Amino acid sequence: MSFKTPVHFGPFEVTDQVFYKTQLVYALVNIKPVLPGHVLVIPFRKAQRLTDLSQDEVSDLFSTVQKVQKMLAKDYFGTKDAIGKIEDGSFNITIQDGKWAGQTVAHVHCHIIPRTKGSDEGDGIYDRLESEEGNVGGGLWDQSRPTQHGKFPRIEDADRKPRSAEVMNEEAARFKDQMARLESEQ
Amino acid sequence: MSFKTPVHFGPFEVTDQVFYKTQLVYALVNIKPVLPGHVLVIPFRKAQRLTDLSQDEVSDLFSTVQKVQKMLAKDYFGTKDAIGKIEDGSFNITIQDGKWAGQTVAHVHCHIIPRTKGSDEGDGIYDRLESEEGNVGGGLWDQSRPTQHGKFPRIEDADRKPRSAEVMNEEAARFKDQMARLESEQ
Repeated sequence: MSFKTPVHFGPFEVTDQVFYKTQLVYALVNIKPVLPGHVLVIPFRKAQRLTDLSQDEVSDLFSTVQKVQKMLAKDYFGTKDAIGKIEDGSFNITIQDGKWAGQTVAHVHCHIIPRTKGSDEGDGIYDRLESEEGNVGGGLWDQSRPTQHGKFPRIEDADRKPRSAEVMNEEAARFKDQMARLESEQ
Repeated sequence: MSFKTPVHFGPFEVTDQVFYKTQLVYALVNIKPVLPGHVLVIPFRKAQRLTDLSQDEVSDLFSTVQKVQKMLAKDYFGTKDAIGKIEDGSFNITIQDGKWAGQTVAHVHCHIIPRTKGSDEGDGIYDRLESEEGNVGGGLWDQSRPTQHGKFPRIEDADRKPRSAEVMNEEAARFKDQMARLESEQ
C-alpha cells in the first residue's frame, strides 16, 4: 500500500503523519504527544471499540505495537547501532475504549508512550493523557479551526499548541526509515 | 486445564483469583482494584515485557481481553439478560510495560478497568493505578507479610488493605460463571 493513499483517523485525514502500515493497521506520529515518541497504532477500518475488532485486526494491532516499541526503543533508549534495547526503557501501552475512558476520536487507537528513568515520577503522564493536552481529537480538530489574529499571544496557549505539519512530517519520515531498517535487519 | 492447577503471577500464587483460562493466558480478579471490576489478563509464561510475547501469545492475550470486556459489560453495564452492552460503558485497557511505566510485577499483565458515566471525572484513575493503591505486586507481597498486633487501627491503613481471599474468591466465582455463560451463548 502506497504511503500516498489517504489515511483517515475518525473524521481526520492523517496521511502525512503515518510512518508504518500493515494490511489492517497503521501507525502515526501524534499531533499532541504527552511525551517524546508518543505514537498511535490504529486499524484502517473505522471501528469505535476494541470489542468491535476481528481476531485478525486485534492480532495485527498488537503485533504492530510490539514492532513499533522495538523501533522506538532504538530511537529513544538504545544506541544508534543496537536494535530493540527494550530493557533500557519502558512503555505505557493504553487504549481509552469508549468516551467514559477518555476516548476523543471514535476510532480505536492504541497509545504507545516511551518512558525512561525519571519520567516515572511526577510527570502526570496519565493526567495529561486524559486532559486537554492529550486530546487527540481536539488537536486534530484545531488544525482546521479558524485562527483569530491581532491578540497578544498567551504563553499557556502557545505551550499547548498542536505540533506543526513540518515537525510531524520530519518525525514520521524518521520513524518510517527506522521501521524499514528494523524489518530488513530481522 | 483444571482450575485447581496452581497459577503463578510473577512470584505469587494466584490460583483462587483466576476466573478464566485459555491455552496461553488467564484472567484474574485484582487484590487492589482501583475501580469495581478492575481485572488483569496475563500470559501463563512468565515473560516480563510485551515485546517478549510470541505472536500467538499476543493474539490470545488481546482476544481474551475482548471476551472479558464483554463479560464485564454484562456484569457492570448491561442488564442481567443482555450480553455485551459495550456501548453503555467504557474501559481503560492498559499495560505498564517496564518499571519506568509503573510495572510492579515483572510478568506482563494487561489491566482492564470498567468506566461508567461519572467515573470519567476526578477519580484520578491513572494516578491511583500508578500509586500505592494500584501496586499489584505490593498488594500480593503484603498477603505474606507478618502482621503486627496490639496497635490502634488506623483508618487510612484499613482503607488501603488488600481485599480478603473470601471477597476475591466470591468475585472470581461470579466472573467464572459469567464467562462460561457468555461462551455457551455465543
